[in-house]
Amino acid sequence: MLSQTAEYAMRAMACLALRPDDLTSAGALAQRTKVPANYLAKVLQQLGSAGLVDGRRGVGGGYKLARPASKINLLDVIRAVSTLERIRECPLGLKNHGPNLCPLHRKTDQAIASLIALFEGSTLDDLLDGPGSNKPLCDEKATHQLTVHGKVLDGDA
Amino acid sequence: MLSQTAEYAMRAMACLALRPDDLTSAGALAQRTKVPANYLAKVLQQLGSAGLVDGRRGVGGGYKLARPASKINLLDVIRAVSTLERIRECPLGLKNHGPNLCPLHRKTDQAIASLIALFEGSTLDDLLDGPGSNKPLCDEKATHQLTVHGKVLDGDA
Repeated sequence: MLSQTAEYAMRAMACLALRPDDLTSAGALAQRTKVPANYLAKVLQQLGSAGLVDGRRGVGGGYKLARPASKINLLDVIRAVSTLERIRECPLGLKNHGPNLCPLHRKTDQAIASLIALFEGSTLDDLLDGPGSNKPLCDEKATHQLTVHGKVLDGDA
Repeated sequence: MLSQTAEYAMRAMACLALRPDDLTSAGALAQRTKVPANYLAKVLQQLGSAGLVDGRRGVGGGYKLARPASKINLLDVIRAVSTLERIRECPLGLKNHGPNLCPLHRKTDQAIASLIALFEGSTLDDLLDGPGSNKPLCDEKATHQLTVHGKVLDGDA
């Protein structure tokens, strides 16, 4: 229901946000995000067209965020690769419906509105870390774990 | 973001729910829902496999709901044609994440959870009518319009 492409775009953006000052090669991005390279190339092209990443081709080239992660909300990322728009008019084009949606399309619109609100309310920066959280795409121990007498406690404990 | 297939499945189910006692032919369904016939055939097959519609082939055949619209929630319809499941484990298979999702996947899981709650909380019956509403798929005037001195008022007025 949430598109695979949107998930892949979020992974790619999170991966770049973890190293905001470096150019990351397409190969390294594919490896870290576990996205098939061909698929990722298309996603990066879309993210570039939307002005979210800058790319440099050739040897030593790669990708980086076009602006700080704190200035990119998740809705920007999702809309770069898929459509997430409120329903303003009857999708069937029924004349007597127009902007007065039937209950079916009101419900769908409500679902879309809730997704928009959720993604618009978070920036890429919010995805990178948090108390007791693992870092996205990194298989390392949680950064805020507490160790007491050699026993690892949860960061929220 | 909400898949086209899910939208088409909801239209087909709403269409059948409007005439629960009749068999509706695939052709009539395609016409009323404005879904391409080939695409609709696949959707109907999936809805049949999920036990939501019964079909009868041949002359005079067609489709009807397998149970009353009040007993079919919208999540059933969506899950018949697409995947909408909470994220239980790191989708990248990172060992140190496991069920302890990173903020990226927590956010995605939150979006999925909100969609599940929204669709699980409504039945197909809820989509058919409502005060001041147009009927899904029917290009007719709202059923609850009020007329005062020959002037049509909005049903919510």
